[in-house]
Amino acid sequence: MRTIDWNDESKNIVLVDQTYLPVELKIIECDNLASICEAIRSLRVRGAPALAAAGGFGMALAVTLSSATSMEMLLKDLKVAGDTLKATRPTAVNLAWAVNRVLKATEDAYDLDSIKDIVISEAIRIADEDVKINKSIGKHGHRLLEDGDRVITHCNAGRMACVDWGTALGVIRSAVEKGKDIEVIACETRPLNQGSRITTWELMQDNIPVTLITDSMSGHVMKNGMVDKVIVGADRITQDVVFNKIGTYTHSVLAREHEIPFFVAAPISTFDPNGWEETVKIEERDPDELRYMAGQQIAPANVRVYNPAFDATPMENITAIVTEKGIFQPPFLLDEVMM
Amino acid sequence: MRTIDWNDESKNIVLVDQTYLPVELKIIECDNLASICEAIRSLRVRGAPALAAAGGFGMALAVTLSSATSMEMLLKDLKVAGDTLKATRPTAVNLAWAVNRVLKATEDAYDLDSIKDIVISEAIRIADEDVKINKSIGKHGHRLLEDGDRVITHCNAGRMACVDWGTALGVIRSAVEKGKDIEVIACETRPLNQGSRITTWELMQDNIPVTLITDSMSGHVMKNGMVDKVIVGADRITQDVVFNKIGTYTHSVLAREHEIPFFVAAPISTFDPNGWEETVKIEERDPDELRYMAGQQIAPANVRVYNPAFDATPMENITAIVTEKGIFQPPFLLDEVMM
Repeated sequence: MRTIDWNDESKNIVLVDQTYLPVELKIIECDNLASICEAIRSLRVRGAPALAAAGGFGMALAVTLSSATSMEMLLKDLKVAGDTLKATRPTAVNLAWAVNRVLKATEDAYDLDSIKDIVISEAIRIADEDVKINKSIGKHGHRLLEDGDRVITHCNAGRMACVDWGTALGVIRSAVEKGKDIEVIACETRPLNQGSRITTWELMQDNIPVTLITDSMSGHVMKNGMVDKVIVGADRITQDVVFNKIGTYTHSVLAREHEIPFFVAAPISTFDPNGWEETVKIEERDPDELRYMAGQQIAPANVRVYNPAFDATPMENITAIVTEKGIFQPPFLLDEVMM
Repeated sequence: MRTIDWNDESKNIVLVDQTYLPVELKIIECDNLASICEAIRSLRVRGAPALAAAGGFGMALAVTLSSATSMEMLLKDLKVAGDTLKATRPTAVNLAWAVNRVLKATEDAYDLDSIKDIVISEAIRIADEDVKINKSIGKHGHRLLEDGDRVITHCNAGRMACVDWGTALGVIRSAVEKGKDIEVIACETRPLNQGSRITTWELMQDNIPVTLITDSMSGHVMKNGMVDKVIVGADRITQDVVFNKIGTYTHSVLAREHEIPFFVAAPISTFDPNGWEETVKIEERDPDELRYMAGQQIAPANVRVYNPAFDATPMENITAIVTEKGIFQPPFLLDEVMM
């Protein structure tokens, strides 16, 4: 099952509404631009690669629904639809990237129908490529895991963040597919609990054994010999650090202290070879994420909160980065990795 | 206001039900052994010193309610009550300590009524001493903090963990009382959020600046130079480790990595000079604490959970332990500290 897909018969987008997880696996259909925009804005679909697919399929919806009678009118409709889609999550680079890629592909169109064909097939290609990349990450990465390994992960770098398979969880899936017994420890990942809500659910669907812990327990489980490896995804990889969900750096220090290998799984598109830790501004999220939980107040309503979305893990804390092109070990030369 | 106290008129225990914080300051009365045991088990009253008071007052309740007609029967009732109280939180050494202290005091009894007087006054003495001890911890400990320090703390080792003033937060209060500007970073302390619910609330009541973070952020804030000191309480201090709320060990590793002093504030009664890490079984709490939050499901209902209440921080990660007798630096000789 794909997290998000194009239904070519009914010409609409089918996606898992992640806001209902883990209580309910609810599949929704978006048959107009407003509904896919709402789904993106409300985090019904989330995760960088999944948002790229949502952007592409949003354009496919737009081309399907347009009543344009000329190439010029249709291309104008698509431009407006693309701007609308991009505005839903202005910082999501993958979303804009996918919209722009679809628009660029229409340059080869020669008539009205060819635009429709090009947009839909380019959107499908974006989603297919994501699955292929993740399978390649898994194909290389499974070698990092041995039969019997107990692997700790943070946040959700799984199927639900992508179109399918996942990056960090994709490596685990590939190892399991090779017949290795892998047990996963999922950190709940405060404040939005992607670990408890999504990672545990995903792995249980696949019958991969998983145990949920609080983020603060990672030191304790490592110290007590309950962990063999750490594997996480990445939001952005610069020359000096890996930006990933807040808490990743803490796990990396603990892993080094306990001499536990620390792996990052991410597609090449995550690499930013011109970037450095100091050039990236870490986004701060809504303080209410720490003051309320599932609508219930868990802190004084006016307490000061610091809520960075990401942290930066220096390369010296990382044992290896696995991409669709292979496994890279430090010292990393990002330019070479990307070649 | 005391967190827990004996009402000598109505012969019952009056305590702040901390499960309602920070939304409501709710005072409850326990007038039988079952209700104080439930309050301890459900963390309505929590924190090592407060549990000592709860243990003492629980014995006062037992002696008040007993229908024993002989000294022998009453002492037997007290023994049973003590075992019941101790079983509510087996790792809480202070609870057992207070129960045993009250039982020991009854050795001086000469008749039925004298047992009742002795038990009640010994319980009151335990609570009074706690306030005095915490003030002494603060008197010594404030020297560890300098004007302008930004101090990170975990869980709640404050007034709400004690009868009054607090241990770790008591040191901060004493420093503030001495005119030092101290800013506190409170870790939310999953899974029960004593940091977000109680520590922030307590400090805001006293107008001490406090910022709330998730537990996983402690590495990030230390790495980014936002922390000068760490100070936490303790549940049990053996020859080799400090047992405290799960997550403490993680912070200690991060503090050492970033060369940030790591202080423990605890009364001498927390010391267990015959204990070692390997002799203490860490209590595991209800898995639902990670599956539900404020009644809302946040993880698959049947997901496997590991939920240890405490972890063990080795002495080499600790810069100093402050007690009511002064500041002790490693190597610690617990026997000497306790002299």
